[in-house]
Amino acid sequence: MVYKRVPIAAWIQTYRKDYIVSDLVAGITVGLTVIPQAIAYANVAGLPLQYGLYSSFMACFVYTIFGSCKDVPVGPTAIIAILTRETLQKSDLGPDFAVLLTFISGCACLLMGILHLGFLLDFISGPVSVGFTSAAAIIIATSQVKDILGIHIGGSKFVEVWQNIFEKIGETKLWDSALGITCIIVLLLLRVSTIIQHVTILIEKIKDIPFMQKAAKMSSRVQVIMQKSLWLLSTARNILVVLVCGVICWLLESHLGSSPVKLTGHVKQGLPEFQLPPFQTNHKNETYNFVDMVSALGSGCLVIPLLSLLETISIAKVFNEGKPIDATQEMLALGVCNVVSAFVSSMPVSGGLSRGAVNHSSGVKTTLGGVYTGLLVLVSLQFLTPYLYFIPNAALAAIIIAAVIFMVELHVIKPIWRTKKIDLIPAVATFLCCLFIRLELGIVIGIGINVLFLLYASARPSLRVHKDTSINGCEYLVITPDRSLVFPSVEYVRAVISKQGTKQGTAVPVVIDSTHIQAADFTAAKGIKSLTEDFSKRGQPLIFHNLKPSIIEIFKGVKPSGLKCSSSELELNDCLKEFSNSSTTMNRY
Amino acid sequence: MVYKRVPIAAWIQTYRKDYIVSDLVAGITVGLTVIPQAIAYANVAGLPLQYGLYSSFMACFVYTIFGSCKDVPVGPTAIIAILTRETLQKSDLGPDFAVLLTFISGCACLLMGILHLGFLLDFISGPVSVGFTSAAAIIIATSQVKDILGIHIGGSKFVEVWQNIFEKIGETKLWDSALGITCIIVLLLLRVSTIIQHVTILIEKIKDIPFMQKAAKMSSRVQVIMQKSLWLLSTARNILVVLVCGVICWLLESHLGSSPVKLTGHVKQGLPEFQLPPFQTNHKNETYNFVDMVSALGSGCLVIPLLSLLETISIAKVFNEGKPIDATQEMLALGVCNVVSAFVSSMPVSGGLSRGAVNHSSGVKTTLGGVYTGLLVLVSLQFLTPYLYFIPNAALAAIIIAAVIFMVELHVIKPIWRTKKIDLIPAVATFLCCLFIRLELGIVIGIGINVLFLLYASARPSLRVHKDTSINGCEYLVITPDRSLVFPSVEYVRAVISKQGTKQGTAVPVVIDSTHIQAADFTAAKGIKSLTEDFSKRGQPLIFHNLKPSIIEIFKGVKPSGLKCSSSELELNDCLKEFSNSSTTMNRY
Repeated sequence: MVYKRVPIAAWIQTYRKDYIVSDLVAGITVGLTVIPQAIAYANVAGLPLQYGLYSSFMACFVYTIFGSCKDVPVGPTAIIAILTRETLQKSDLGPDFAVLLTFISGCACLLMGILHLGFLLDFISGPVSVGFTSAAAIIIATSQVKDILGIHIGGSKFVEVWQNIFEKIGETKLWDSALGITCIIVLLLLRVSTIIQHVTILIEKIKDIPFMQKAAKMSSRVQVIMQKSLWLLSTARNILVVLVCGVICWLLESHLGSSPVKLTGHVKQGLPEFQLPPFQTNHKNETYNFVDMVSALGSGCLVIPLLSLLETISIAKVFNEGKPIDATQEMLALGVCNVVSAFVSSMPVSGGLSRGAVNHSSGVKTTLGGVYTGLLVLVSLQFLTPYLYFIPNAALAAIIIAAVIFMVELHVIKPIWRTKKIDLIPAVATFLCCLFIRLELGIVIGIGINVLFLLYASARPSLRVHKDTSINGCEYLVITPDRSLVFPSVEYVRAVISKQGTKQGTAVPVVIDSTHIQAADFTAAKGIKSLTEDFSKRGQPLIFHNLKPSIIEIFKGVKPSGLKCSSSELELNDCLKEFSNSSTTMNRY
Repeated sequence: MVYKRVPIAAWIQTYRKDYIVSDLVAGITVGLTVIPQAIAYANVAGLPLQYGLYSSFMACFVYTIFGSCKDVPVGPTAIIAILTRETLQKSDLGPDFAVLLTFISGCACLLMGILHLGFLLDFISGPVSVGFTSAAAIIIATSQVKDILGIHIGGSKFVEVWQNIFEKIGETKLWDSALGITCIIVLLLLRVSTIIQHVTILIEKIKDIPFMQKAAKMSSRVQVIMQKSLWLLSTARNILVVLVCGVICWLLESHLGSSPVKLTGHVKQGLPEFQLPPFQTNHKNETYNFVDMVSALGSGCLVIPLLSLLETISIAKVFNEGKPIDATQEMLALGVCNVVSAFVSSMPVSGGLSRGAVNHSSGVKTTLGGVYTGLLVLVSLQFLTPYLYFIPNAALAAIIIAAVIFMVELHVIKPIWRTKKIDLIPAVATFLCCLFIRLELGIVIGIGINVLFLLYASARPSLRVHKDTSINGCEYLVITPDRSLVFPSVEYVRAVISKQGTKQGTAVPVVIDSTHIQAADFTAAKGIKSLTEDFSKRGQPLIFHNLKPSIIEIFKGVKPSGLKCSSSELELNDCLKEFSNSSTTMNRY
């Protein structure tokens, strides 16, 4: 039990010395990624920038103890940040509410873990998740456009923001835009996959040229070194951009006295206090108690934990390479991460995909990597915050935009079209509702539509009908329902069977091929009772073929008269023979 | 189309002369039942008594034209009356609101019919319906206890009413209680089924006595006469009780000057005006416009049409003896009934089971019977309303109580227990929520719980796992999912298959018996893609056996690498042989 719920107790015993280096390298690499991201996501969430860093160390420590998947680095993410922003913006709430939201999300995750409600996450289908993520990415990018352009605008809704942008497009600042766009281009170029591909292709081409073969041999070693350094460059691209821009702005500010681009400004220095989450706060000269605060946060209290779990678990699945995930453990771990993080003024945290990839490719061995990441964040909080002042807003916005544009999954439309066209409906509905109404509401609507599909399918099973002839020449009708009989479907099934039966005339026996009827309930039993009684009233034989014994028991519970079952071809033939005999007898007299 | 949607156009052409008598007899018999019931149900709904009669003629005429089931008499019913009461009592609304409710219910029914939303009704399962009906019966009976006791109390909730009754139990009026209880006993004794049974048993006993055989022979004719007159007595028992009590009270009032029991009092005489439903009204010195009125009615606008349809369609099913019901036509018919009835100040109407039974046993041939019922009600409205004054409240209460106590379906618990014990949860939950919260809310909660069962089942299919050996001696694992792969289940199925596969070691091929996988969606295809990739990564063969071609197409939409399928035992054996060869080869080198 302890080993299962506190995984560190298990792996610490087999921890090898050489893991230390791997974990250290991975931890620090992730740390270098997380620091600029954390600041940027605090900006997305509409919180003072230090909150990004506050959110990025405690969760790492806690996850080291309780996490079951070595590749998941817990911290602020784009999706959770934009959801936090939407939750807070509804009533223009402050950071205290974000911290309480973290605490409540943690409690909700814990509760879901304890009550084994993991199956709820399964109801977020692929298409809904795609629609939601794409819409969220677009909304996040939209929220950053103003910083790229160097303009100041209000508004939180997608349409509203773009309207405001177009109104103030004339006020665009040259240097901000230039810096922002340059940063985006650099960041996109530094994305590893494309570059390494190009380098590899280049080297292959060199090999083809005859007199270059010697060079090519040497280059294979160069290739490895190049690939490694490109990987490093790509992994550290965010911090590099921040550093370079920061240094330039610092130089400009110290020489010119003012910077031509808008800077982040003062960030509070030092570690956050370890204190109870704010269960009471003053907001706009009003005192909010716990209940007021929770009701101000509203549906965010449910949607944020649900989506942070979804994010974390789907990342764990990606990196676990088919090994099963202990979803309950992940829920408990994420729950504790959020609850404890709330004591150090964190915004809601979850597993981040991009940092997961960095962690994985850095060759992390255990969750211990998180400790080094956390320590690095603590150091930067204590010593580096004064220098955050010089980071240009446009650079942070560029980091976010370069990260989220790959979350718009247009390429999924084609496979959905090829597999099941109707699945585009929940995808598109979720996308549009998320974009034009609100993210939280959009995903709820999407799930609702998708569940309706499910319910409709169970209410209206398909029944295959065909005619067959037994070995003794008796013609009969075979009806095959494709799924279990449950309350929403039974009346429909009964109606179809009755209709098909009467259409054939009472002389033709009806055989229900019950292979796929793997479950039934009380309503189904009652419906089957009425069905058998209808058939025996008009003297038409009705035989249930291949009905599972457990289902026969269920049907017998309502004491139907004249329920005939056959469990093999032989028995079926006997049943049919019996009938054709009796009908011949009837004809004779 | 006309024949389908206006059934009278079809059957009027084949109407035979001898049908007239049957329909006339049935129509008048139903009329004699409906008049006392209508008055009593107006009382249940908390409306002036004439509203009961207002509700009982127009719907009959309309149903004659549009109805597709000859046995369904449309009018006020106990369930709809108590739902109307609850809807009105929430904000203490008047009859104008009831009439608008009728109009809105009608529109909702029509809309459901036009949009083919009949499948929504299928989501009210047997157990939920039993729980709801039983709770409604108890609440209706509770609402009548005060009239039996002759006390005056307030309160609308179940617990509240009983508390008030026990507080005022001391004020019980002797004569009211005596009359009420006597009426209940008489009504119960006059219920036909039990009496006829007893008479038949008595006659059988007489036959057994030797020297009584001659008498027995004669008695068989007597028996028929007795049965017929008992049937008449039983059918007309409500009107008989009302008549007898009314006459007694009239005599007492005219001789003593006052009645010892509480009387119904003045009932407005004459036919209602034919006018637009009240789209605007004054209530408690405030003017309500249409929107205000609808929002005051609240959820009643949805629950009442849903339940009136449920009632009507389930009655049609009972009496149609297995012939399929055109549910859409019933929705349209009931919709028009309610809409048109709203023009004559009716409360919401639906098909009534008890009157349906009377109609059926009176041998009705077509829906034309309704015309005679309606005419009888019109006559009584015009000429008999002055005499309604003398009907004692206790007698009306007795009629209701004697009718509804048989709606408490305790006897259903046993078959549910025998068929599927877990179905007791929605039944009991619905019952308790209906009783202690509110009827409307109770049925919604019950449906919700039941739908959760359905969703849980589709999220967590059962997978049968067993080992098998092919003819060439290759041992393999067979996993059989019992239902379709849909988004909530696919991750679970993937996890189970992965777990079972790794448990066996990579040397054992895994065969998915896909007989029951009759449908799949995009999320399922993605899950299967991950699954096949996991298996090919660890070099373990995974074969989908008996997968439907249409499902293979769906899976192929996401381009899974290494998806292996076999459609026959032979192919499966080939697949397994291939694998065992390759693994032997691997072992050799």
